[in-house]
Amino acid sequence: MVSGLQYPNNIQKNYSKNVSYSNRGMDLEKIIEEANIYYRENDIAYIFKKPTPIGIVKVVYNNKERRIKDAFYKTPSTLDFNGLYKGKYIEFDAKETTNKTSFPLSNIHEHQIKHIININNHGGIVFLIISINSEYYLLPGQILIDFLNRETRKSIPYLFIKENGYILKYNYLKGLDYINVVDKLIGGSYEKNAN
Amino acid sequence: MVSGLQYPNNIQKNYSKNVSYSNRGMDLEKIIEEANIYYRENDIAYIFKKPTPIGIVKVVYNNKERRIKDAFYKTPSTLDFNGLYKGKYIEFDAKETTNKTSFPLSNIHEHQIKHIININNHGGIVFLIISINSEYYLLPGQILIDFLNRETRKSIPYLFIKENGYILKYNYLKGLDYINVVDKLIGGSYEKNAN
Repeated sequence: MVSGLQYPNNIQKNYSKNVSYSNRGMDLEKIIEEANIYYRENDIAYIFKKPTPIGIVKVVYNNKERRIKDAFYKTPSTLDFNGLYKGKYIEFDAKETTNKTSFPLSNIHEHQIKHIININNHGGIVFLIISINSEYYLLPGQILIDFLNRETRKSIPYLFIKENGYILKYNYLKGLDYINVVDKLIGGSYEKNAN
Repeated sequence: MVSGLQYPNNIQKNYSKNVSYSNRGMDLEKIIEEANIYYRENDIAYIFKKPTPIGIVKVVYNNKERRIKDAFYKTPSTLDFNGLYKGKYIEFDAKETTNKTSFPLSNIHEHQIKHIININNHGGIVFLIISINSEYYLLPGQILIDFLNRETRKSIPYLFIKENGYILKYNYLKGLDYINVVDKLIGGSYEKNAN
């Protein structure tokens, strides 16, 4: 495990020796996308990764086709994944840290915090999926908001996440299966409706 | 009014003489975004235009900043706008035609049709906002799906849209105000909750 490296956008990536350089930091998003595909194919939920927001500077026309020749990555002001489950609006982000004792809040942009508060206020289901200590946790937006209102510290302790989040397990068939936790959050039952 | 012109992606654009070349076809999206901003600022609904899906071919690193130097526009397989209103999932697309008697179905990609069916099946609110004959209509997904199941024609007659859609009005303060129709679709009341 390589730790302490700092990548663009202040997102610290967690990767094992076996993962190639080109895959670094893709793991969490990849296993979430595996779950999303499983949910879509089995008609359980309908959740997608949003396109990456970019700012386009230069477009050229070749044979009537538009081609982007200069563009930059915008700082995300929303979260990476959204969609619907049982008619409910779902939005969440995947966050990784190599830090073992806490999750640095610098991983969450200020606009993302506002976005989480707004989704929560409008009755949507919003959360983070956090990869820490080789474990995966779903941390509900409400718990994050309460923490930020109460605490002045710049990171969320690992033990807080462990106690207040829901642990998620990777499954080779379903990917990182998180919808059963969403079901708990909306008070329904995943098992019943998956039949 | 210029009619019969064919633009990239088979999307026919509707624009008046007063609109500059650079604005062509932007009008409908622009007045929808005005409404979305009004809804967000007044805490009525929380709906965004999705980032445009692009395929990235070449990225260069300049001073630790990533810059996209070659990319192309992907064919959209989902709809342009999504978000939430009273906890409900909302997704829709803006479609324009210069055709005065019907809306050509070539304006809707095959994957978008599947997407509309899936959102509908999962209990989301899905619709098109169609600009035709200098009028704007909200056409619910269910009505579109029923039409496609029943008819073999390659366009939706203007009169069908007029009879089965909901006319929308532009308002200089609110933009193209559509949320009151969404409210009818979910059986609530916009006026009550806007206070």
